[in-house]
Amino acid sequence: MANKKRVYLFGGGSAEGSAKMKDLLGGKGANLAEMARIGVPVPPGFTITTETCIDYYKLGADKIRQELEQDVVNAIHFIEKHTGKTFGDINNPLLVSVRSGAKVSMPGMMDTVLNLGINDDAVQGLAKQTNNERFAWDSYRRFIQMYGDVVMGVKPRKGEIDPFEKAIEEMKKAKGVEQDTDLTADDLKELVEKFKQIVKEYTGREFPQDPWEQLWGAIMAVFDSWNNERAIAYRRIHEIPDDWGTAVNVVAMVFGNMGDHSATGVAFTRDAVTGEKRFNGEYLVNAQGEDVVAGIRTPLKITKADSIAWAKANGISEEERRTKYPSLEEYMPDVYKELYEVQEKLEKHYRDMQDIEFTIEEGKLWLLQTRNGKRTGLAMVRIALDMVDEGLIDEKEAILRIEPNKLNELLHPIFDPKALKEAKVLTKGLPASPGAATGKVVFFADEAVELGKKGEKVILVRIETSPEDIEGMNAAQGILTSRGGMTSHAAVVARGMGKCAVVGAGEIEVDYEKRQFTVRDIVVKEGDWISLNGTTGEVYLGKLPTIDPEIGGYFGRLMELADKYRKLGVRTNAETPRDAQNARKFGAEGIGLARTEHMFFEGERIKHMREMILAETEEDRRKALDKLLPYQRADFEALFEIMQGLPVTVRLLDPPLHEFLPQDEESQKEVAEELGVPVEKIKEKVEALHEFNPMLGHRGCRLGNTYPEITEMQVRAILEAALNLKKKGIDVHPEIMVPLVGVDKELQMQREIIEKTAQKIFEQYGDSIDYKIGTMIEVPRAALTADQIAKVADFFSFGTNDLTQMTFGYSRDDVGKFLPIYLEKGILEHDPYQVLDRDGVGQLIKIAKEKGRSVNPKLKLGICGEHGGEPSSIEFCHIVGLDYVSCSPFRVPIARLAAAQAALRYPYGGEK
Amino acid sequence: MANKKRVYLFGGGSAEGSAKMKDLLGGKGANLAEMARIGVPVPPGFTITTETCIDYYKLGADKIRQELEQDVVNAIHFIEKHTGKTFGDINNPLLVSVRSGAKVSMPGMMDTVLNLGINDDAVQGLAKQTNNERFAWDSYRRFIQMYGDVVMGVKPRKGEIDPFEKAIEEMKKAKGVEQDTDLTADDLKELVEKFKQIVKEYTGREFPQDPWEQLWGAIMAVFDSWNNERAIAYRRIHEIPDDWGTAVNVVAMVFGNMGDHSATGVAFTRDAVTGEKRFNGEYLVNAQGEDVVAGIRTPLKITKADSIAWAKANGISEEERRTKYPSLEEYMPDVYKELYEVQEKLEKHYRDMQDIEFTIEEGKLWLLQTRNGKRTGLAMVRIALDMVDEGLIDEKEAILRIEPNKLNELLHPIFDPKALKEAKVLTKGLPASPGAATGKVVFFADEAVELGKKGEKVILVRIETSPEDIEGMNAAQGILTSRGGMTSHAAVVARGMGKCAVVGAGEIEVDYEKRQFTVRDIVVKEGDWISLNGTTGEVYLGKLPTIDPEIGGYFGRLMELADKYRKLGVRTNAETPRDAQNARKFGAEGIGLARTEHMFFEGERIKHMREMILAETEEDRRKALDKLLPYQRADFEALFEIMQGLPVTVRLLDPPLHEFLPQDEESQKEVAEELGVPVEKIKEKVEALHEFNPMLGHRGCRLGNTYPEITEMQVRAILEAALNLKKKGIDVHPEIMVPLVGVDKELQMQREIIEKTAQKIFEQYGDSIDYKIGTMIEVPRAALTADQIAKVADFFSFGTNDLTQMTFGYSRDDVGKFLPIYLEKGILEHDPYQVLDRDGVGQLIKIAKEKGRSVNPKLKLGICGEHGGEPSSIEFCHIVGLDYVSCSPFRVPIARLAAAQAALRYPYGGEK
Repeated sequence: MANKKRVYLFGGGSAEGSAKMKDLLGGKGANLAEMARIGVPVPPGFTITTETCIDYYKLGADKIRQELEQDVVNAIHFIEKHTGKTFGDINNPLLVSVRSGAKVSMPGMMDTVLNLGINDDAVQGLAKQTNNERFAWDSYRRFIQMYGDVVMGVKPRKGEIDPFEKAIEEMKKAKGVEQDTDLTADDLKELVEKFKQIVKEYTGREFPQDPWEQLWGAIMAVFDSWNNERAIAYRRIHEIPDDWGTAVNVVAMVFGNMGDHSATGVAFTRDAVTGEKRFNGEYLVNAQGEDVVAGIRTPLKITKADSIAWAKANGISEEERRTKYPSLEEYMPDVYKELYEVQEKLEKHYRDMQDIEFTIEEGKLWLLQTRNGKRTGLAMVRIALDMVDEGLIDEKEAILRIEPNKLNELLHPIFDPKALKEAKVLTKGLPASPGAATGKVVFFADEAVELGKKGEKVILVRIETSPEDIEGMNAAQGILTSRGGMTSHAAVVARGMGKCAVVGAGEIEVDYEKRQFTVRDIVVKEGDWISLNGTTGEVYLGKLPTIDPEIGGYFGRLMELADKYRKLGVRTNAETPRDAQNARKFGAEGIGLARTEHMFFEGERIKHMREMILAETEEDRRKALDKLLPYQRADFEALFEIMQGLPVTVRLLDPPLHEFLPQDEESQKEVAEELGVPVEKIKEKVEALHEFNPMLGHRGCRLGNTYPEITEMQVRAILEAALNLKKKGIDVHPEIMVPLVGVDKELQMQREIIEKTAQKIFEQYGDSIDYKIGTMIEVPRAALTADQIAKVADFFSFGTNDLTQMTFGYSRDDVGKFLPIYLEKGILEHDPYQVLDRDGVGQLIKIAKEKGRSVNPKLKLGICGEHGGEPSSIEFCHIVGLDYVSCSPFRVPIARLAAAQAALRYPYGGEK
Repeated sequence: MANKKRVYLFGGGSAEGSAKMKDLLGGKGANLAEMARIGVPVPPGFTITTETCIDYYKLGADKIRQELEQDVVNAIHFIEKHTGKTFGDINNPLLVSVRSGAKVSMPGMMDTVLNLGINDDAVQGLAKQTNNERFAWDSYRRFIQMYGDVVMGVKPRKGEIDPFEKAIEEMKKAKGVEQDTDLTADDLKELVEKFKQIVKEYTGREFPQDPWEQLWGAIMAVFDSWNNERAIAYRRIHEIPDDWGTAVNVVAMVFGNMGDHSATGVAFTRDAVTGEKRFNGEYLVNAQGEDVVAGIRTPLKITKADSIAWAKANGISEEERRTKYPSLEEYMPDVYKELYEVQEKLEKHYRDMQDIEFTIEEGKLWLLQTRNGKRTGLAMVRIALDMVDEGLIDEKEAILRIEPNKLNELLHPIFDPKALKEAKVLTKGLPASPGAATGKVVFFADEAVELGKKGEKVILVRIETSPEDIEGMNAAQGILTSRGGMTSHAAVVARGMGKCAVVGAGEIEVDYEKRQFTVRDIVVKEGDWISLNGTTGEVYLGKLPTIDPEIGGYFGRLMELADKYRKLGVRTNAETPRDAQNARKFGAEGIGLARTEHMFFEGERIKHMREMILAETEEDRRKALDKLLPYQRADFEALFEIMQGLPVTVRLLDPPLHEFLPQDEESQKEVAEELGVPVEKIKEKVEALHEFNPMLGHRGCRLGNTYPEITEMQVRAILEAALNLKKKGIDVHPEIMVPLVGVDKELQMQREIIEKTAQKIFEQYGDSIDYKIGTMIEVPRAALTADQIAKVADFFSFGTNDLTQMTFGYSRDDVGKFLPIYLEKGILEHDPYQVLDRDGVGQLIKIAKEKGRSVNPKLKLGICGEHGGEPSSIEFCHIVGLDYVSCSPFRVPIARLAAAQAALRYPYGGEK
């Protein structure tokens, strides 16, 4: 044990550790070492290994201190040597920070102590150094408070408030001031004395003046914090092993507020908004990091070019700029040059755009942090591709660098960032479908359609939407609902349309009668302007200008790259010509799911549909179906033509029939009049069709098998459409998909009906067409008995929405009652409707694939649930070896990229 | 090929085949051979092998006839020799029947031809033989009709009715008679001519007069019928291989109507009602089998003893009896003696009670059929055990002989069979819970309770029942509902109570307001008497006397035998003391499922439950829960005391909370008044708790994890009850079951709550008790991830009701909309809520068992769904290796027997 190297030094252009030693030094320690190693000026310091933390729990504090003692003393001397400062010195004191740092970041879970080393002597040295007595004493009182709490365990007694805070309050009252910042240096001196008394009173010990004692206390406190309740809970939720331990990082403090030759700032190696290769950033002279954050002073630009542009935009003369707002490039040309070189080096070293923090202490540059910079989707794509061109990274790495979901930003309108700054957030819902939308509030679908025709921009606001609202949703700029989750009707349909939607905004109370909604005490009336951000879920009052995205050459190039590497096919879920066109534009290789029920709502169709439902005999049902046939056939012709050359999977009627009948009395009356039947008949039918659990009810192929004539009509529409187009020389590949199969004989019976109907049509036309028959796998039993079902299927398409619903037993419409709590408590890591559950649902997919292929090796496998557009789920589909994913049109590019990433990460997953 | 033996002769005391040759000779052929072989007089005949049928399809009719020709000719001569009759003879013609007969019975699927050999000559011989010209000519015209249809393919042309039927109608019209039987011998002679013309007209061929030609046609027709549509469909549904083929049986016709020395009858080797070893039966002199069926003449008793008893019961003098109604024993003592010996021989040979058909042709006894006789449950048990004592069969065979479901008859009251004969069936529903009940109609649970207290017998009639009706159900003699399936609330609760119930009687329309129900045009008012047969689903008007069953020594002995061989434990689902007592009486070895929610409906409890649900804060919820605690604790004390020494599995609260709130406005008002809250609050809560798919909603452990205080209260009630009893020296084994787990962390979190609460209680009591924590496996995901869940579970109990629901995606409450159609069309073989689906649900159980035991070898496994009391499902539980099944109290004996049968059938299934 005693032979283990426990302390790793860094600083002065070298380091004992490196970025590769994250297991031993933690993320922070390894990174500080790496910067030192490549010659970036970081304040000197040292890291105590994670292993020591584990040994601390095995051997106890005394034994560990004994083992560490000499190394830590040497390490502090090492820091003193490199800083020229001395621990506890009255003139030039060395202050250090003591921070935890595990292998992976556990933000805020463990303890940190800053300004360690300050005491009654050092506070004077700090005052001199910073030329700021108030700052020095404030630092001292903060240190006592932090150290007293974290290391010495000063906690308020039962029923008390925090004693330090109480002392501050009393002091402010005594001095007659309101703010902490109004306390003078002398007040703070008094407070330091008071704080020391508090420590004495609560711990029975004096506050330690000896910096060494302070240091040992802080090191042990960091070790202890590995096992505090928060940290344990965090590890449980994130599945971090308890035996990783935390490292301890002890680093010299540096100060950017020591006068006009000191400064602090942040910089980016490239433009985080556009991705342009252009060093940029801001700084403040004689300031600390927190001053930049506080935003009291205006930060200055680092480069001259930025500075000039900024002055121009703000109407400041060049003269004034040069004197009052100079760039760092002009103000400290040497330091700037060094900084420029450092950022170049860092970017080259880390091979990514860096976000760096620096402090200049009396003309000396120190880098405090470097990390990969956050960036917009646009910048992300451009930077990755530029870096390929620059030879910094290869194509594969470029692909893996892109966060697929951020491509959304490139595909949808966004709010003008300037306008957004002043906009008032009214409330927040779930970000159901990305983009930005602004329009007048309207509550009814038909009115949305009417206003839409007049060219007015509207936002359709509903408690929830139903299939009857589809035309209204289509006409609106965006959709806002007060109920429903990420897979509610509104959400699914909006995503399909690529239309901005915010759903489940629970604060909103919609009053259809008064034609208004309220949020707390704010009333928004029909006709008022609101704006929705479907990417964040935010709802704004008023009209916010939007900007349409420009999909430049970078996007196209990225997609080409993705296609080069991916193995999964990418189809789309679409049933309207507009969706299909969009999807083709985005690179969809076919339609994986066309929901035919959506075709039954428009205009006359719903009337015939209702006639069909109300029919008492097969004969009457057939009559109504005959009227629906031409509409449906025309729909398919349009769809097939757009998708020519590509497969189109058409799902037969799926929802329970009651969804086509109005549920409220008023509408029932209207429908009765329209159809010329007594309203009682409508009511009776609604009553007869009522189900306690409609999701598990009379729907899917259960309809097609109890009313085979419905299947017949749909098959006729599909195949006649295909044959009509074939006559025109258009290449059509229809695939007929039977929904909700759970028993092989269900599909067999549907197959017989389909084939018999096809035979008749082919005879009538004197021509035939190749088509496939397959099924959704969306009932657990279907997956479990896939070897039986695959015998009568040409393809399987996993309907993971329903499959998730039944595998978990979570009603999609009701899950909002407990899912948020489950996510919060860590019972679930993700919403399983968003991220495919590999352990449960995924296992069923695997079982189905293996069993299905075992009897039918040519079986084609795809997924058409919402998961088909979600990157982690797409990765799973690749690993498990599906043939394609199908997603809403606007997620097609995301799926293409995610599929490529999966192929690169799992080159052997998906090999068949 | 030519070497294959294709024709097997039987008759004259010997046979070439035997009962063991069912594959080759079919069931019927093998059995006829067997009887001949053991010396029972059967009419001579022969069987053409099933193999020949298969070859017929391979080689064609000509080739097969060629191969068969000589053998068939020889075989007919063999029959002629043994009967002394001649094929086609004008004086003494031989007639034969030609019947199909596959390895397993396929009733009515294939073709049969009777009286073959009749022609213009033979009809005269038949008239002489039978001394009945009309009979002879009627046989001839029937033969032409049957042969014309089956063999020659006379079918009505499009739009026509059957030409033979049309000819009969025209004849009746011409003769001015109403009934077929009114046609005279001469009329029939005319009709025969007419029929021959029809055959000529429809087939272009003369009706064959040559008996040989008739025979070959019939043989080939039987072969053909193996592949008719009905037979193919039947095989598909029953999974009978297509390549089994059918045998053809050609047997000499014998006639019991050839005069006073001829007779026909049926007999049983033992009493089919009581099981007593007592030969009995009935016969008719000068009659055919169909005369017995027609019931025009009163059949006479076979034994003298029976005859005397019958005369006594009907007030007939001994003189009159002896002359007009003699027994066979007296009328034909020699034949009787032979018959008596034959029945003894047959029973000994088949080692089971036989149901035999015989014909006496001119003093000569012929056995036409023997088969195992149908019998009552009581007789079934007695016969099996008597036969063990007689050394005919061993214990194992006795156990395997019992149809478990028929034990029901021994456990429940039945209607007096005499009264039943005259009773009028009003309508029929599903036989939800066996037994017989009679009482006055009452529509409301509270009134049932009130009348029950006064000692009145009532039948509770509801559209459907809800948990609020439980007391009323308990007070009623039986329950009748117009909606719901075999697992509806009414059905499940009634079975649990062992109370007679008929559910889903769809013809009934209940009108609560008028306090009456109607069936078609019959109105039944409150207070009217009705009677229910829960075993058949029949509903009768009026008061039918019931008989309580006597569970004699035979039943007890059978149960002892079952216990000796079974490996599965048998527990019960029970939560009331009455149920628990019943179950213990029936031999339950513990409680596998006590549903705690049923305990929250009585009296004050529901009030506190509602307070709990309406509470806005945890504090208020806890207050209400504190009030529920003493009730619940007392319930558990009662249950634990009855079940002392045995394990009791208590399931924590499972149903969604809205089930405890009234849904209609009237009741909401009442509750609001009772609780002293505004009715709006109740309405709001009902609204807030509303779910679209409550089965997949906020229930089970989702409640316990969102409101941990509910779990805490229940755990407190369970463990305090256990500790209180422990003080009194009572041995208690509580097992706490967490419902609806789908994610391991759900159970982990509940486990933490349970253990923490237990710790507190043990500290308070200064004592502790052993208890287990486990979960229902009822969500597919739980089964799929059982290896994760088993780490925090001591036991699994498969909740196969919910598991079936989610695996199939069939809502139990709504499945009535399509399940009957699915069963009818053969998509499903069984209602999966009745018979456990081995392929899907069963696979999940297997997966869960294997995964669960892989991480936790001691994991205890049981089943507590409705399937736990169903024999085929119990067999599966044995095969898969569960530890126990749990079922409603009245099914405990059935489960004990079924478990023993499973252990005997699958001695290696279930070995762990």
